[in-house]
Amino acid sequence: MKLATLKSSTRDGRLVVVSRDLTRCSEVGHIARTLQDALDDWEHAAPRLARVAEGLETGSQPIMRFHEHDAGSPLPRAYQWADGSAYLHHVELMYKARNAELPDGAHTDPRLYQGGSDTFLGPRDPIVVQDETWGIDMEGEVAVIVDDVPMGASVEEAGAAIRLIMLANDVSLRGLMPSELAKGLGFFQSKPSSAFSPVAVTPDELGTAWDGRKLHLPLLVSLNGSPFGKANAGIDMVFDFAQLVAHAARTRPLVAGSIIGSGTVSNRFDGGPGKPIAEGGAGYSCLAELRTIETITTGAAKTPFLKFGDVVRIEMKDETGHSIFGAIEQTVTRYERG
Amino acid sequence: MKLATLKSSTRDGRLVVVSRDLTRCSEVGHIARTLQDALDDWEHAAPRLARVAEGLETGSQPIMRFHEHDAGSPLPRAYQWADGSAYLHHVELMYKARNAELPDGAHTDPRLYQGGSDTFLGPRDPIVVQDETWGIDMEGEVAVIVDDVPMGASVEEAGAAIRLIMLANDVSLRGLMPSELAKGLGFFQSKPSSAFSPVAVTPDELGTAWDGRKLHLPLLVSLNGSPFGKANAGIDMVFDFAQLVAHAARTRPLVAGSIIGSGTVSNRFDGGPGKPIAEGGAGYSCLAELRTIETITTGAAKTPFLKFGDVVRIEMKDETGHSIFGAIEQTVTRYERG
Repeated sequence: MKLATLKSSTRDGRLVVVSRDLTRCSEVGHIARTLQDALDDWEHAAPRLARVAEGLETGSQPIMRFHEHDAGSPLPRAYQWADGSAYLHHVELMYKARNAELPDGAHTDPRLYQGGSDTFLGPRDPIVVQDETWGIDMEGEVAVIVDDVPMGASVEEAGAAIRLIMLANDVSLRGLMPSELAKGLGFFQSKPSSAFSPVAVTPDELGTAWDGRKLHLPLLVSLNGSPFGKANAGIDMVFDFAQLVAHAARTRPLVAGSIIGSGTVSNRFDGGPGKPIAEGGAGYSCLAELRTIETITTGAAKTPFLKFGDVVRIEMKDETGHSIFGAIEQTVTRYERG
Repeated sequence: MKLATLKSSTRDGRLVVVSRDLTRCSEVGHIARTLQDALDDWEHAAPRLARVAEGLETGSQPIMRFHEHDAGSPLPRAYQWADGSAYLHHVELMYKARNAELPDGAHTDPRLYQGGSDTFLGPRDPIVVQDETWGIDMEGEVAVIVDDVPMGASVEEAGAAIRLIMLANDVSLRGLMPSELAKGLGFFQSKPSSAFSPVAVTPDELGTAWDGRKLHLPLLVSLNGSPFGKANAGIDMVFDFAQLVAHAARTRPLVAGSIIGSGTVSNRFDGGPGKPIAEGGAGYSCLAELRTIETITTGAAKTPFLKFGDVVRIEMKDETGHSIFGAIEQTVTRYERG
């Protein structure tokens, strides 16, 4: 089934079940008011929501039109958002750009940072930033929402706790990172609010594209209408979602509704760095990767970061060309105090 | 007023208003089921809760006994937990122990890390850890809960958004930090679930001890019944809560119910490192600080980290010796899968 959260006068919006083709939806307030409510009691809510999803396809269910523009983040605010960096190739490039090697253990110990989860952006909300010179960047990602995960869960248990899959734009302010990372405490100001796709889907909606741990489809990233990336999320993902979730739960439990991200999706090209789509490559899911390749090959980055007015679109299509999650489409906008 | 969350069969517990002396409480489900519900609509909920608090003191309100043991974390799960490191003196020692200097800007740019907020420990819950050799440590802190804070809020606006104050134990696994910090992404596994005091209080409950930005009272930390720290939270706090909140909101808004911590409370002694209580000092709020001083002065740390069975207690008393927030009292316990 496919689930979305319609924006409403409440902070957590209204849960709806969405038709497979994303054109219709049905209110399910009698089952769960919000997606978090459904996740809090997934065992009971999921079968009931699935029956509504069935009714939506067969026409036996009251429906209304679904517009992606009306959707907020599936979880407008969440209790946990931890974002991996599973495409190590991407990380390796970042190290290489500063003449460093990947640290020992990089291939066995997943990278994951603690994100902020209190104020997610809706999938069509602008990316509001105060200062254009802060190095505004998108990061196109896949993310999963898990059920309760006990502390010390095995990789198998962690994988079995995955309930929903969606796309993410992990908005980053690259220019604020060096001074922030120099403090040794990770990101804070350099990772403002993230955005997620209009729709989160259960694994069965993905058919064979979801192998239980990875999603084997291209992540379509475009910039001002031009294709920028189509890297396959199932390729070059060194740590799968089950491993990322288990890593996050090593020293603490995770609550139902916790979101775990893949990190920027990135594919190698012939064993080396990715190439632009125009040159026959799979392109990129963030600007920083391309800028890093430019720095390594020509000595300087020439692609600029995002500017006010730029439009980022992140989407994924099934084998018949239909959008699975709806599109994240966001315009970078100067922040003005209301 | 004083607010607590009684553990219940629900994930977020039941909000109660607690009497000033922490002996009685009153259910307020007709006003707000949970503390997050109250914070989501503080403007309306707070005056009504305050009337219950008044009734509790005058006896005009139905009451029941309040037992700190029945309380969960005021917010058993929250949308945001960002923890500062405002007692720079403490940070300076950590740098000194590895022969480094505080970075430029350390006195003007607050340090704050993004914590995980999905699974807080109740104030009397054990600190469950899988492995005793992970360098288990407490960090005694003061924390505030804010209302909605707009992106880019001024320090004044940030200070005005502080709604509640409580104590925190920011449990840390020191042994997991070096390899985690080497990845450059901050803490994750090394900062397992934190605990908060049984009661959160509005600023007016603190009288002159709260100046709007700092809490001027000693934080009493004991270890296995022996006093270990009594550092005054109002002394040597280089960044006050208003500054920490504004820092957290620089590039994004904060949602109502966000928790901002002070970092380990720490006092200098005669301009130098703190001294143990037995030597006339104010002691320490975490073991790492004492171990660092030992390393600097004798070449090696001799105080061990916490062991299974150790009991940490964190409390704060008013000028008449009464506990303000109730006590965090936690036993370190080996984690066994249920």
